[in-house]
Amino acid sequence: MKNAAIMGYGTIGSGVAEILEENRDVIARAAGEEIRLKYVLDLRDFPGSPVEDKLIHDFSMIEQDRDVELVVETMGGINPAYPFVKACLLAEKHVITSNKALVAAHGSELLAIAREKQVNFFFEASVGGGIPIIRTLYDCLMGEKIEGLTGILNGTTNFILTKMDKEGWTFDQALKEAQCLGYAERNPEADVEGHDTCRKIAILTSMAVGKEVNYEDIYMEGITRITDIDVQYAEKLGMSIKLIGASRLQADGMVSAYVLPLMISREHPLYSVNDVFNGILVKGTMLGTSMYYGSGAGKLPTASAVVADMIHGVRNAGRNVELGWSAEKQAVAPMEMNVFRYFIRVAGQPEDRLSDLMTFGPLEVVSTGKNDEFAIISKEMPEANFREEAAGVEGIRSVIRVEL
Amino acid sequence: MKNAAIMGYGTIGSGVAEILEENRDVIARAAGEEIRLKYVLDLRDFPGSPVEDKLIHDFSMIEQDRDVELVVETMGGINPAYPFVKACLLAEKHVITSNKALVAAHGSELLAIAREKQVNFFFEASVGGGIPIIRTLYDCLMGEKIEGLTGILNGTTNFILTKMDKEGWTFDQALKEAQCLGYAERNPEADVEGHDTCRKIAILTSMAVGKEVNYEDIYMEGITRITDIDVQYAEKLGMSIKLIGASRLQADGMVSAYVLPLMISREHPLYSVNDVFNGILVKGTMLGTSMYYGSGAGKLPTASAVVADMIHGVRNAGRNVELGWSAEKQAVAPMEMNVFRYFIRVAGQPEDRLSDLMTFGPLEVVSTGKNDEFAIISKEMPEANFREEAAGVEGIRSVIRVEL
Repeated sequence: MKNAAIMGYGTIGSGVAEILEENRDVIARAAGEEIRLKYVLDLRDFPGSPVEDKLIHDFSMIEQDRDVELVVETMGGINPAYPFVKACLLAEKHVITSNKALVAAHGSELLAIAREKQVNFFFEASVGGGIPIIRTLYDCLMGEKIEGLTGILNGTTNFILTKMDKEGWTFDQALKEAQCLGYAERNPEADVEGHDTCRKIAILTSMAVGKEVNYEDIYMEGITRITDIDVQYAEKLGMSIKLIGASRLQADGMVSAYVLPLMISREHPLYSVNDVFNGILVKGTMLGTSMYYGSGAGKLPTASAVVADMIHGVRNAGRNVELGWSAEKQAVAPMEMNVFRYFIRVAGQPEDRLSDLMTFGPLEVVSTGKNDEFAIISKEMPEANFREEAAGVEGIRSVIRVEL
Repeated sequence: MKNAAIMGYGTIGSGVAEILEENRDVIARAAGEEIRLKYVLDLRDFPGSPVEDKLIHDFSMIEQDRDVELVVETMGGINPAYPFVKACLLAEKHVITSNKALVAAHGSELLAIAREKQVNFFFEASVGGGIPIIRTLYDCLMGEKIEGLTGILNGTTNFILTKMDKEGWTFDQALKEAQCLGYAERNPEADVEGHDTCRKIAILTSMAVGKEVNYEDIYMEGITRITDIDVQYAEKLGMSIKLIGASRLQADGMVSAYVLPLMISREHPLYSVNDVFNGILVKGTMLGTSMYYGSGAGKLPTASAVVADMIHGVRNAGRNVELGWSAEKQAVAPMEMNVFRYFIRVAGQPEDRLSDLMTFGPLEVVSTGKNDEFAIISKEMPEANFREEAAGVEGIRSVIRVEL
């Protein structure tokens, strides 16, 4: 039997406790021995809850209890998650986290400590909720060189964009509904500005290249400027707007990586990833393209990923599983070098404006029947050229990158 | 360094040799040590090939060479693959196979020998080509109770159905093209009659329930009776016909399982799985639904799955990874108990025929403009009732089950 502790009894932490209880037998069979929840660390009390008798408020009880071999961190944020996790690894306990902020900011260091202490630092639940994408990268696609990753990695923004697309809602209406349903935080910035997606693509890319990708090096643009009018144009084009995090290993050893709203066509494998679902495309040199799809958020899918990591921890007691990345820095190519086609909405009539816009051509012109504006889709251009040309054009109402 | 042997230098076997050579460094890093190809067993000679100096014709050289710890079986078929694999496991070598016929027929016995000898019998490449679905089931979705599996598991038939759908080809035209492109065998029976899909869903279901599912217990219907006229009706309905292998754990502990052409709607996650791609939906109690998508066939994707298993074998030298299923038999519910809606094409005019067809109703009537026939979609009915009623109706031209 292995003893476990959960730090943080919020949505995910309580989901983990629930699954450990409900799937006790399946888990014991998979792990080879029983996993027993010994402590739940939280500042709050939860009188009447099923873990009432396990609640503690003092972290040192976990740190100093040599019987606790598995520690789950579901507190979120950097403090005190970071010092607690570090202390647990140094005390030779396996740590499992769902905290992408922690992994993106301190992953290299924590992975190195785990290696040194011959324990494991697992973080499946930090990316893709219930989709086992982390394990797929380090365990299933072994021997594969990963050339590209493209994902819808944030359930909240995907829900908002889906509602704008399918129901014709405005951004604000969709955001409000997401908040009502508990998908979006009161302060939705981390989701809608792209921070969450950015941390996740940084983690995945670090795993794919084996070096540390700093999320601050990744170009990031959220969905707050996407309007229902943009969505109408996309529909007219038979396309859909998705918040995409992507990275690609370049021939020069640099990585191109970005987070931005992208118009994708019906043929794109991520086109039908709707609502709070996530989808991740992986391109390997031998394997070709594969896709992984599932619930991107939600208590039980995420908690289920944590529990799978706990079982993996028990199975690998006493040895470090090689995963993650080294502390070596991976160079990220500047955004200006990336090539896209651009959807550009402009004021005016095509007959009056097309001469100004020739620099983006050969053009495809789109209209939704609104009288005072139209849109074009440009040729493929490096971002730097596009910016230079766009700076000289008046009346641009919105720009969205396009992948055809 | 670990020595390996490949038995069978056909498409997949030569792909494995190629990847071992080309990705030597990535593989050594992932495995923790180098993998060296020592022998290639084949009846043929391959003068001038890169493995010329490794070719042998005598299996006992592999069996008796204690330095060979990893054996890849890519011969296909049951004989001599079965006695060779069994002998290798008994000689305490890890065996990796891409041979679904072998796994479906003798998996339980071979898994038991591997357990006893503390080696591994891995078969990722036997299902889903480059999609790591086997490892996902035993390694990523640990702690999850799998309730349902639904997959497009055969690339050849999916290619044929896609061509009939998108290009309007007849079955024979599409089959001929598949043969020209090397997707279909000269004798395409194993693919088009559903045998291949049937063995694969038997393997996946055995893993999901932990008991042996006999593929002969699974109801099987191929795609040879699907005509271009059926496909036109499907298009009219906004649906697509796919060869589906599916299984579901019932509350009574029985498993319902079948292989058959199914009409699925645009909203179905497998709708956009086209050409030679495969897609597999997994439904878990905690995780909800997840999907895995990728190249279902092809030399390098499949060989890449074999190589990942070889690396896994090196990482787990000296210990058996718990996977697969016991020899205990899993009961499969009779096909007659499964419930579907039915697409039924009948001769005649709706006004003359609807009274005969009321037994299937409330009905949805569909026409493609052909004068002498029309089609209906029935209510949900258990297969037994449907068969009984259909036996009394004249002029039925085709029946396809529908999932709405």
